[in-house]
Amino acid sequence: MDNFKFYVPTDIRFGKDRLADELPEALNVYGKNVLLVYGGGSIKKNGLYNQVIDLLGKNQNIVVELSGVEPNPRIETVRRGVSLCREHQVDVILAVGGGSTIDCAKVVAAGFYSEEDPWAIILGRKGYQGEALPIVTILTLAATGSEMNAGAVISNLATNQKLGVGGPSMIPKVSFLDPANTFTVPTYQTAAGSADILSHLFESYFNVTPGTDVQDFVSEGLMRAVIKNCPIALKSPDNYDARANLMWASSLALNGLTRNGKHGVWSCHAMEHELSAFYDITHGIGLAILTPRWMEYVLSEQTVTKFAQFAHNVWGIKEEEPIIAAKKGIQATYDFFKTCGIPMTLPEVGIDDERFAEMAKQAVAHSTIKADAYVPLAEADVEAIYRECLTESNFV
Amino acid sequence: MDNFKFYVPTDIRFGKDRLADELPEALNVYGKNVLLVYGGGSIKKNGLYNQVIDLLGKNQNIVVELSGVEPNPRIETVRRGVSLCREHQVDVILAVGGGSTIDCAKVVAAGFYSEEDPWAIILGRKGYQGEALPIVTILTLAATGSEMNAGAVISNLATNQKLGVGGPSMIPKVSFLDPANTFTVPTYQTAAGSADILSHLFESYFNVTPGTDVQDFVSEGLMRAVIKNCPIALKSPDNYDARANLMWASSLALNGLTRNGKHGVWSCHAMEHELSAFYDITHGIGLAILTPRWMEYVLSEQTVTKFAQFAHNVWGIKEEEPIIAAKKGIQATYDFFKTCGIPMTLPEVGIDDERFAEMAKQAVAHSTIKADAYVPLAEADVEAIYRECLTESNFV
Repeated sequence: MDNFKFYVPTDIRFGKDRLADELPEALNVYGKNVLLVYGGGSIKKNGLYNQVIDLLGKNQNIVVELSGVEPNPRIETVRRGVSLCREHQVDVILAVGGGSTIDCAKVVAAGFYSEEDPWAIILGRKGYQGEALPIVTILTLAATGSEMNAGAVISNLATNQKLGVGGPSMIPKVSFLDPANTFTVPTYQTAAGSADILSHLFESYFNVTPGTDVQDFVSEGLMRAVIKNCPIALKSPDNYDARANLMWASSLALNGLTRNGKHGVWSCHAMEHELSAFYDITHGIGLAILTPRWMEYVLSEQTVTKFAQFAHNVWGIKEEEPIIAAKKGIQATYDFFKTCGIPMTLPEVGIDDERFAEMAKQAVAHSTIKADAYVPLAEADVEAIYRECLTESNFV
Repeated sequence: MDNFKFYVPTDIRFGKDRLADELPEALNVYGKNVLLVYGGGSIKKNGLYNQVIDLLGKNQNIVVELSGVEPNPRIETVRRGVSLCREHQVDVILAVGGGSTIDCAKVVAAGFYSEEDPWAIILGRKGYQGEALPIVTILTLAATGSEMNAGAVISNLATNQKLGVGGPSMIPKVSFLDPANTFTVPTYQTAAGSADILSHLFESYFNVTPGTDVQDFVSEGLMRAVIKNCPIALKSPDNYDARANLMWASSLALNGLTRNGKHGVWSCHAMEHELSAFYDITHGIGLAILTPRWMEYVLSEQTVTKFAQFAHNVWGIKEEEPIIAAKKGIQATYDFFKTCGIPMTLPEVGIDDERFAEMAKQAVAHSTIKADAYVPLAEADVEAIYRECLTESNFV
């Protein structure tokens, strides 16, 4: 196990019916001028927007809105948010939405204190050490874990770039996690969010650092919680406990719990970010498509033990022979995504092989997967994995 | 899943060789006057004491010592600590040791701000809302999880009471977790500490709240990490990764991760606290002795499903028939503790049946196990469980 720091000071308020009593108090610590950040308007349909506006009104907040944050939030929207914060002397940012909204809020929060253009912060990558406006979130989608970590991913369609950034000041101060706020998430987004959670777990689980049983076994537990509860939520969208388990799993899957103490970089996220950057597809869907193909591609004598452990402990596969167990685990992963209604080939989401070479080049250029991934991936490897996603797969 | 708050702002510095670079900076935030709290002198034998004193000297700290904290820390020691803090205008408490030392430091920290005698804080139980001096810890034993939570347990031998207290200000600000600092922990204490970790997990795992898969599956993972790594640490005391997994598991087992979102009170801890209060035995040993007998005692048609899940997911028992699987899981728990070298009967630790009735009465009086336990326990139940611990057991 590597040395690590674990410091996650987000105050999580999990459960139903907490906003009326707790939201005003959470905001008042920082001031009365609020930037309300949200996405495409789903919170207007389900009543959450009205509830929040009503509470903020009674609390004498002065509210400025940054709405229309995109599913892959764009740098232009961040710039708009920074201008609003400066113009209206915003004290605190309230992000109501999923990971995209929260990610956008984080970079707005940092951008407020930066003299450079916000894209410069992104290009600085994981090392933002400056100040940021305080952020409070109300989560409406179980997926990215952004509600309990310091990271953000922003897209720049002008340059076909989708890049991550992070820094200690960007972690939300308080996050409200009410599973009932995810009852209206459509099945496709519920499945995509679950795939995103699983991918966060997979990416750190398949890792070369020895002696990380705590991280690995906790990760297996979180995977099983998602695998059990996602189908329940798909069938019964207002099943509170299923939504609760997905929501809490989303936060724990990416707050450091399963990743700290390990080194190396993620593979599928690097490859998926290019799909989203070039084609603006749903992040979790891209991950679900890539992951089983990546698993098969990196399965070898060196990795088979971990893949067999994955098959046994996560999927309950009884097969003893490691290589067969491993393949069955990969098949189970693929079948799970398919059963959740996720289109499992790239053509189904509008991507053909035309830009594979270009995206593979970018995936390697924008990350260190060539040197630091679980199994190092060069451009040819990435392109081969993309190519495997052109048609349905069978792994056993 | 119940509503819960998860707010664990302890800054964990996990790993080796961090003190020289990080300890002075962690203390300087609060001031130069340090109360150094430690136990019976094991840190003098293994060199940690000298290392810390050296660092504090170079950092120009003024150090006052509270040494000799007992394995079940006593209220008299807390009083002594409070006096020292007042006399020397202490700014920050540095606790170097295991859970007892850290627990003692927490109540000293709170007592400093209280006009009442510190035992009044304990009698106030879980509700301390006042201020406390800041606490930094250097952990030397994987067991209680006190390094990453707000709770403390203090004994009053004058009244045969061992009671818990807690409050948000009592959570350590920074905790240094270096697995190498546990290399010199003797096998008996290593086993007792592992039993303590497992007990924390068991107590919240066997619980009536429905829909808590995340908490339960994470808990199963942590249990497996302890079960795998404790025997390695017993055999090879300086196996870094085994010690690392036990240490990180100890913190995660009692920081809320596996407990939040559930209601009800713990059973075995309430029963064990009386054993320690009356006979001053090692806490983890008492828990190991009681736990399998308690499991069998509460096994019923109502609880068999959870016990079978425990057997399958934690012990890898293949048996399908729930009641047989459940019993095999209990047997595996008992056998595990025995294999770790823990004396598994009360007479082996100097306890006969003389005070069973009195202790059973206290266990019920000092807790709400009669109403709120996983399976409610009255005095007669507690006494029956104590009685089962008089001889070796067989559960299958």
